[in-house]
This record gives sequence, C-alpha cells and structure tokens, in this order.
Amino acid sequence: MGKRNLYLKTTPVAEALEIYMEAVKEAVKPEHEVIPVTEALNRVTSRAVYAKYCSPLYNSAAMDGIAVVARRTEGASEFHPVELVLGEDYKIVDTGDPIKDPYDAVIMAEDLLETDCEGRVRIIAPAAPWQHIRPIGEDIVAGEMILPGHHCIRPIDVGVLLSAGIVEIEVVKMPQVAVFPTGTEMIEPGTEPKEGDIIESNSRMFENMIRSQGAQAVRFAPLADNYDIIRDAVKSAAEKFDMVLINAGSSAGTEDYTVHVLRELGEVLIHGVAIKPGKPVILAIVNNRPVIGLPGYPVSAFISFENFVTPVLDFLGQRVGKKNKTVEAVISKRLVSSLKHKEYVRVKVGCVGDKIVAAPLARGAGAAMSLVRADGFCVIEQNSEGCEAGETVQVELYRDLEEIRNTAVIIGSHDLILDVIADLMPDRYPGMHVSSTHVGSMGGLMALRRGEAHLAPVHLLDEETGSYNISYIRKLFREPVALIKGVGRVQGIMVKKGNPLQIGGIEDLKGIRFVNRQKGAGTRLLFDYKLRLLGIAPEEIKGYDREASTHMAVAALVDSDSADAGMGIRSAATAMQLDFIPVGEEEYDFAVPVRYLELPFIKAFIEILKCSEFHEKLVELGGYTWEHAGEVVYCG
Amino acid sequence: MGKRNLYLKTTPVAEALEIYMEAVKEAVKPEHEVIPVTEALNRVTSRAVYAKYCSPLYNSAAMDGIAVVARRTEGASEFHPVELVLGEDYKIVDTGDPIKDPYDAVIMAEDLLETDCEGRVRIIAPAAPWQHIRPIGEDIVAGEMILPGHHCIRPIDVGVLLSAGIVEIEVVKMPQVAVFPTGTEMIEPGTEPKEGDIIESNSRMFENMIRSQGAQAVRFAPLADNYDIIRDAVKSAAEKFDMVLINAGSSAGTEDYTVHVLRELGEVLIHGVAIKPGKPVILAIVNNRPVIGLPGYPVSAFISFENFVTPVLDFLGQRVGKKNKTVEAVISKRLVSSLKHKEYVRVKVGCVGDKIVAAPLARGAGAAMSLVRADGFCVIEQNSEGCEAGETVQVELYRDLEEIRNTAVIIGSHDLILDVIADLMPDRYPGMHVSSTHVGSMGGLMALRRGEAHLAPVHLLDEETGSYNISYIRKLFREPVALIKGVGRVQGIMVKKGNPLQIGGIEDLKGIRFVNRQKGAGTRLLFDYKLRLLGIAPEEIKGYDREASTHMAVAALVDSDSADAGMGIRSAATAMQLDFIPVGEEEYDFAVPVRYLELPFIKAFIEILKCSEFHEKLVELGGYTWEHAGEVVYCG
Repeated sequence: MGKRNLYLKTTPVAEALEIYMEAVKEAVKPEHEVIPVTEALNRVTSRAVYAKYCSPLYNSAAMDGIAVVARRTEGASEFHPVELVLGEDYKIVDTGDPIKDPYDAVIMAEDLLETDCEGRVRIIAPAAPWQHIRPIGEDIVAGEMILPGHHCIRPIDVGVLLSAGIVEIEVVKMPQVAVFPTGTEMIEPGTEPKEGDIIESNSRMFENMIRSQGAQAVRFAPLADNYDIIRDAVKSAAEKFDMVLINAGSSAGTEDYTVHVLRELGEVLIHGVAIKPGKPVILAIVNNRPVIGLPGYPVSAFISFENFVTPVLDFLGQRVGKKNKTVEAVISKRLVSSLKHKEYVRVKVGCVGDKIVAAPLARGAGAAMSLVRADGFCVIEQNSEGCEAGETVQVELYRDLEEIRNTAVIIGSHDLILDVIADLMPDRYPGMHVSSTHVGSMGGLMALRRGEAHLAPVHLLDEETGSYNISYIRKLFREPVALIKGVGRVQGIMVKKGNPLQIGGIEDLKGIRFVNRQKGAGTRLLFDYKLRLLGIAPEEIKGYDREASTHMAVAALVDSDSADAGMGIRSAATAMQLDFIPVGEEEYDFAVPVRYLELPFIKAFIEILKCSEFHEKLVELGGYTWEHAGEVVYCG
Repeated sequence: MGKRNLYLKTTPVAEALEIYMEAVKEAVKPEHEVIPVTEALNRVTSRAVYAKYCSPLYNSAAMDGIAVVARRTEGASEFHPVELVLGEDYKIVDTGDPIKDPYDAVIMAEDLLETDCEGRVRIIAPAAPWQHIRPIGEDIVAGEMILPGHHCIRPIDVGVLLSAGIVEIEVVKMPQVAVFPTGTEMIEPGTEPKEGDIIESNSRMFENMIRSQGAQAVRFAPLADNYDIIRDAVKSAAEKFDMVLINAGSSAGTEDYTVHVLRELGEVLIHGVAIKPGKPVILAIVNNRPVIGLPGYPVSAFISFENFVTPVLDFLGQRVGKKNKTVEAVISKRLVSSLKHKEYVRVKVGCVGDKIVAAPLARGAGAAMSLVRADGFCVIEQNSEGCEAGETVQVELYRDLEEIRNTAVIIGSHDLILDVIADLMPDRYPGMHVSSTHVGSMGGLMALRRGEAHLAPVHLLDEETGSYNISYIRKLFREPVALIKGVGRVQGIMVKKGNPLQIGGIEDLKGIRFVNRQKGAGTRLLFDYKLRLLGIAPEEIKGYDREASTHMAVAALVDSDSADAGMGIRSAATAMQLDFIPVGEEEYDFAVPVRYLELPFIKAFIEILKCSEFHEKLVELGGYTWEHAGEVVYCG
C-alpha cells in the first residue's frame, strides 16, 4: 500500500497550540528594524516613542486676529472702546503665527471694530493675558511619550510623530513567510486543466491571509511529490525566511512526504490535531524557524491556518491577535459532532426579527465555496456531541454584523435568478444584501415558519388544484404570509448536447443513468408527480437515489458524463450548453410573512424584481417569464 | 486688514454633504480596470464574477483508499469478508484522484484488512454507490456566480476564484488622490525647525488615511502661500488625479487663497460647515473632479476628512463605508456645546464595572495628541446644547471594545511614570493596557467615587498629620478603598539651566514670571501650602493664574522662556534639562476600590510597580524612590 502514515495522533487544539507556541518562543526572538515614519502605517512599534520637539514649537496664535499686550486693553467696553495702533499696540497674526514679547494675548478678527483710519482698530472688551494663545508644548511636550511599544501605527500617529520631530521609528520586522504548494497533480492558474489536474489555489489564499496579517509572503511554484525536492526546498527556505508553510502532503496518503522531510530536517512537535476540518496538520521547527504543514482541502487549510499559523504570525509580528467577533445565534438545524475533535461548522447568519439565526452550510472539507458564502463559524467543542435545532450557539463572525442586519435572508428552492438578485442588490441599494441558502421549497417554508428567514423561494404544485404555492402557504402558516410573485420558468430534462440517447420525455429515463434532486426540492416533487402520472416506480429509475442539491450541480454531472440525464430548469441547461426537453411550466415565487414587507431590504428586493435590468438578465439566462414579477399576493 | 474671508457660511453637515455628493456623482463615473486575481486582495469587484470551471473538475476521491465498483462489494460482512484484487477489483487512490468508469465508490484505507498476499485486500462491509466520491461541481459549478459586484475581495475569495479558473478580474479602479500641503511657514519633517516654522505633518496623515481606505495618495511638497503657485498646481492635478486635497488655507486668514483659486478654476459648492472642529472646509468641483480644501489644525483636518473626504473616496472606490462602531457611554464631565455646529469631542473610553465611561479630552482643534490618546468621539448634534455629567451619550469608537475592556482606567494626578507603565503593560501582559487622564489628585478621587476609573494616582498632603493620601481616601469614600503604594518623588522649582535669576526657594518667586498648575493638582496644593507657610499671598506671584496641566507642560514653558519658573517633579526638569530646586518629598500612590484588586489588569499593574525593569526606568528618569512600590495598604 505504499508509504502511508495511517495513524495520526490527534492532540486537542489548545494543547497542540500551547506545545508549539512554547517551542516557537524558545526558538525565535522577534526582530526589529528602523524605518521612515512615512512608511510606518500598520507597523508595530517595538518600543515606546518619545517626542523630540514640542508642538506648538513656540507660543502661537490660536486664531486669526491681532496680537496685543493684554495690559494695554484694560478698561475697554462698549461705552469706552479702546483704539489700538498697528505697530505700536498690535500686530496682525494668522493662526499659528508665533507670539513674542511684548505681546501676550490675541484678539479675534471677528471682535475688532474697523475705524476710518488705516492701521487703527477699536476693541470693546479687554483681552485676558494669554487668551487665544497656544502655549509651547500645549499639544506635545518634548520628551513626552507619544506611542507605547506594541502599538499598531495609524494615520493619525504618523502625523503626530512627524509633528514631534520623529522621522524614523523602530518597528517589529515584518515576518517573511515562504509558501510551498506541493503535488505533482497541481497546475498553475491560467493553465487549461486536464483530467487529474488540480488548479493550485491554496497557496494564493495563504499568501493573502499572510498579507492581511501584516507579514510578507513569498509563494513558490508547486513542488512535485518527491522527497528530495521537498527536502531541499524546505531546508533552503528555513535558512532565508522567518517561517515556512508547506501545502499539502501533511496527511496519510501514499505520497505524503512532508512529515518525513520535517523529521529529517528538524523536530516535528505535533502531527495530527483534534480539529475538523483540518486534522492532518504538522507543527515543526526547522533551523529555529517555525515550519507548518497544512492540509490540502481548502476548508481544512483555512481553518488550520487560522488556528496555528495566525498565532505564530502574531508572535513574530508582535501583534495582539484580532479575535473574530463572537455572537449568540439560534442554530437552524441539528448539528451532530464527534467527541473526537473540535469542529468548525460554516454558517450563514441572518437577523430575522430580533433573532440572530445561524444556518449550517455544507460541511465537506473540500467545499471552498462554503467559506466564501459563510458569515462565520459555529464552533463545536471537542467535549460536545453537537446541538439541537433552536439551541443557542456561539458563532465567530467574519462578516460585519451591521451588514448582516441589512441582509434579506432567503432560504428555500434554488434558482439562478437568486444570484442575479444578489448581484443587483448592493449595486442599486448600497449596503443592502441578500443571502440565500438552498434547501428546497418545503425546507424553505419550514425555515420561514421557525422565524429563520425573511423569504422562502418556492415552486410547489398543488396536484389537486393545479395551482402553485398558495395552498401550501395557507396550510402551513397561522400568521399572515404573502407571496411575492417571482418568475414563470420551464422545467425539463437536461441531456448532453445533441441528445445522444434520444430522450424524448420522462418515459425514456428508465435504464439510463439519472441524477435526482434532494428530497423536498420542488423539482423532485414535480418529477415524482410526473412519474406517478406515467405509472413509473422510482425503483425503475437508475440513480433515483443519487442526489444533487442545485440545478447547476445536476447540469454539471450530465455535462461531465457522470450521468445521462437530470431534471432542472432551462437556464441551468443553457448555462452548461446542454440540450433540454421541456416537461412543464411552473411558478417560482417568494413566500414572505406580511410583517416583513415593510423592511427596507424587502422593499428593495421587490423593486429589483420589477426593474428592467433584472428582466434583461432573465432574457440572457433564458426560459423565464416575468409578467407578474414583484406583485404581492396576500394569502389570507 | 488684507484679504480675509471673514464671514464663512456654515451649512449643516448633513446638508453640505448631500449637496456635495450630488455634485460629485453628477461629475464623476467610477472607473474599472482588469487586474490579476493574485493582486486583487481588498479590491472591489465592479460586477458579478461567474465560475469558468467546475470544482472539483471531475468525480474525485474524497478520501485516501481504494476505488471500487460498488456492485462487486455487495454482501461483504464480518462473517463473509469479500476479497478484492488490485487491477481487477480496485485501484489505489489518494484524496483528489479522479474516479473513472467503471469505479463508482471509494473505500477508506482505514476500512481495509490487509491479506498475506500483495495486491489483495479484504473488506467487511459493502460500499454504497458514490460513497467518498466528490462529484464534479460539488463545490463550484461552471457558470455559477462566485462573487457579486461591489464585493471587497478577501483571501478566501482569491483561492476560490483561481479554483474556478478565473485569473483576471474586473475591479473598481483605485482612486488616485493628490495631496497638496500649503503654507510658506511649512517645513518638511527632518528639517531643524526655527521659530515660526511648522513641521508639515497633516498631508502625511491624509496620505495614510487615503491608503487605509483602499485608494492611492500622491503627496506633494508644501506650496508657498502664493495665489498663482497654488492655482497652477491644483489646475494640473485636477487633470491627472481622481481627487485633489488642499491643506490648509481654507479659512479666513490674510493668506488663505484656496477658496479664491477654486472659484477661479471651478465651482465652490460649500465654504464653511457647521462642524467643530473643522468648520472652514471647502467643497469644490474642478474639471469634473472633487477638490476639497481642508483646515490646517490637525484635529479639524482629521474630522473634516472623515466627514467629507471619506464619503467621496467610498463613492470613487465603490466601497460601502465602514462606520465606526457606536456604543452608549456615561459621560464623566459636563459638555457644553453651541447650537451653531455639530461638535466632535474626543473622549477616552473605559469599562469600569458594568459601565462604559467616556471622559472628554482637550477640545482644542490643534491638540493632535488628543486624537492619538482618544478612543473615540462623542458627537454632539447641532441642535443640542450639550450634556450633563452622568448622562448617557453615543460614542463613535475607533478603538476595539475588547481592548478597552482590558484597559486599566487611570484618572488623577500626572507623573511621567504613567507613560512608563503604559509602555511596559502590553509588553509584559499582551492585550492589556492602561489609559490615563490627567485631572489632578482631587479630580481623580472624584472620578473614582463616581465609578469612572479603576485607579486614581494621588499625592495629597494632609497638613494636619503630615501624612499623604490615606486621610483623604478615608474622608471621601464609603466603600472599601485601598492604596497601592507608588513612588516617592521630589517636588521643586524648575528654572532655566544655570538658574540665571538665582532662585533659591519659593520666597524668591515674587516678581518673576511664574506658571502654575491647574486647580486640584497635588503640586498646586503643595505650592499653596508652602506659600501659606511663608506668608506669601497668591496675588504676589505673577502668573499664579496662568495654568498648565502637566509637569512637562510647565517645564516646556520654562525651557522656552515663556515663564521663568514653575513647580514640578524632578523627572520633568531632568527630561527638559532644566535646573531644579527641591522643595519637598511626597508620596505618589494609587487609590483603588478594593473590589477592583482582583481584576487581571490591576494585578498586572501591581506586578509592574514591583518589577526591576520599572525600577531601572525610575533611575533613568531621576528623582524617585520605590521601596514600597506595589504594596497594597487597606484604608478601612
């Protein structure tokens, strides 16, 4: 079976981190460097900075006006104005001008009465000594501490440092991190992929995560799965860089060399952590530098980076780690977790009514898109078996809560128009967003009923009346719920270009490789209905139990010849250039509790359904009608 | 009186911004550009991005193990293991390897039983069709929207874009902003300043504020106060840049040319806004580009930038403005404001007990250090006359609330050791801070009593007992308050180097130019006590009413010959290289309610008082003793 590291130890996360950070702190001392203040934005001071000059540098006018000797203005009043003579009694000053002996007060220009005579002004109130004068050092006194050590420099700090005469500053050296992707199957982005190729993208994510943390990243081209190549690269990098990341080869596959290389070159402190996803992480020290092997799946890579690389970078850069904001949210679905590991479940978060709701997303470690879609993580501790729907959980947010509050939460059936709306929303209504989760029509209505969504997109055929959606809403809700009319769309069978198997309708699906939609999807209900009409049993359809969760996922399986046919909407077939055999037309609408209709982002949503830009997109996608789009039908 | 624009109109902030943004939106259309995805971090998508490839690109193994034909594994159980033959029944696969016909399932390496025979394995459970296989497009489907428009690109987005075959992306063009400092009195940082010179630093603050908002800044050398020079520079910049900032010359001084230049070159929409500080702002359009004149005082410059430049940059860069977080806080001091303007009062914010307390800082527009020290702004609306101490106010935070919660709030008497402690704290105790406000000993005890501080540094002599601090605490508090012993320090008279006026003691201060400390300061109380002992009346001291609020501020006035003498501590005299005539020794301690003694940052504070690094700093500063530093004395 080749060289496999079958049995990884799984150290608990906190313990692994403690062991490793102790080793890192022993091996490395953070370094400093002196740089110009003008280039110091976002750098961290390595020690306190003290002012060289005072600011202001001298007693100076705080206002535009005239400098006077306070004593000579005594007695001035409305009845007895005092007249002052330029050069004798006063001097014209602008804000910031030095005030020198004998002058010891400033009178504002607005408080002067002009006289007929040039060079003479009258005042009707005396000036108090030192009024409107900024004394030397009022703002900054030479020798005073301006910034403490360990301070991350902001724009205002740059201004004040320069004012105080500081032009160079000692800061913590920016850590330099080498990033090595590995894998013979990896190809560079921009290359046309062949079967078996994987586009190397993790290292680019790391590179940018490193930059976001104030460090520098040097990303190398992918290394082949070859022990000697990997060893030589890591050995040389551990001499030149402050930290080295290797991705992947950290697991137990036949070609996972990383751990062996690191054992040869230095010390492996941890291999395998009780974290999911992210388990096969390697924490090592080579040549007194931290070297970390990260798993290959994008989500595992991201989570193990956040858990182990981030703390090391914080230490090297002497930054206080910014923690993600944690909020309490109601979880919308039961989550089962194993006691074997701490689990990070990606969630979408929405504010519905006064509840913050967290809806779990796909849990696969390969689902990078779920990281893009997620608003945060629900962390299930190692000693917990999970939580029930409706329980309160802690969510680490990495999206702004304010943005989440301005987001229409859409849970239900999937359609490509949801992407179009998601794109139009922030463009036409800055700051407003939609977030959609695809759980099928029935799943959407259930979420709406539990108060976890604002809108549920549905296309549910009532077999008795032949009408769509309204009867389901009437049956399910006690509170008043309306239907925002969406689009009419054509459902049908997607087959490969040219329809090689000559499929003419559902009756021809027996014996071929079919892929179905998940339970509760309107498309699956329609398929079941049609099967019943034709008297075909599900068992007769090969692949009836093989499920995909969106129209596009079904289209992709057909396109790649992994299946011969699947049910879906025309726009998905068009997008993937598949042939399409129409089966029926249906109404795809949005159920909405009446009390949400006045929310600004729901109003915006309705306006978008009505706007011509949206209708133009529908023409592009193909297979839609929209004569009633945006109309509100009360289902009372 | 020269060319003054005496009477600025003062348009309310919201109205001014609305008028200007409307003009900007009419004049400018945000531009786009195509850049490599690998350089797109923090850029904003100008339109939705759709996937080019699926991910995974093919059905692939989700686990390390073997690929099998599910049908051939049927019936396997512990009692009837099924033996599989390499090449015939199975193929070894690592995670990510393509799974091709006839294989339709993967069995994990962990679930295989080895046999004696190479190339044969045994299984004890059947494989379900499609198990451990990631179907093509499971993560990303070609044609699917990956990112909407108006999305700020994060590290994870870069990874997913590349995985989906996107290597170039259309983003909003980064706005290019020209920054022109003006003023003949301006000198560049690094030049030795002479009287009348001002170190030009605002433009460097702007430059970094612009960068922090994702735009590019080009900063020019200061322009002389000359109409033609300013006109030519602005005219040419308005052709090459997306936006132009001019600082300052926006006010009504004799040499404020900016508004005249802008009237000649384009249209001035607003001159003067009802905002404090920041009133004399100029909002103009030249050659269809936004051109803004900003006031010269650093705080005015900062506030008018945030109010007017930031929204324009957000529009040009198509970003949704990040608002500062707003919290409710109790204001610790009465704030009076005029109905004439919206006022921004800088505050320090502390969490004391369960209260968030906001303490107003210096309100002068020139006090740039107050911006460095501030944690946020308390905004007093134009239609409000201010607020009373203890009232709840809204504070716009620009420091992290979490950091504020880990901060020891110190209000009271000033000493240079507070800076030293502020520097040592985050170094020895990462994430912990001290924040200190200087209001004198009595002011500190009052703040402690109102629950607005954790610690009050005090040096209050009880004239009856001759002892320090304890009797004041006993008198003032009902709850148990302890004293953390600080340092002994020498108070005395600071005079110019060489003591030219031959001052030998307080009796020699009559007739010379004295500068006093503010009321309530322990140093002032000591001075009053000494005056009384000597039978000298305050009126006999010239400058008894001239106040400075820190030891260092007094030292700076003496050093610059603005005063002949002032009272203060030896370390301040040493820092400014002044001569020092000792007057007495005193005890500088920290009053603390007993219930705070267990807080982690108070414990850390006590440890710092005891540590040798701190004592070494005291030696450097000079004039301190520390035999009891860090001891806790209960004043019950």
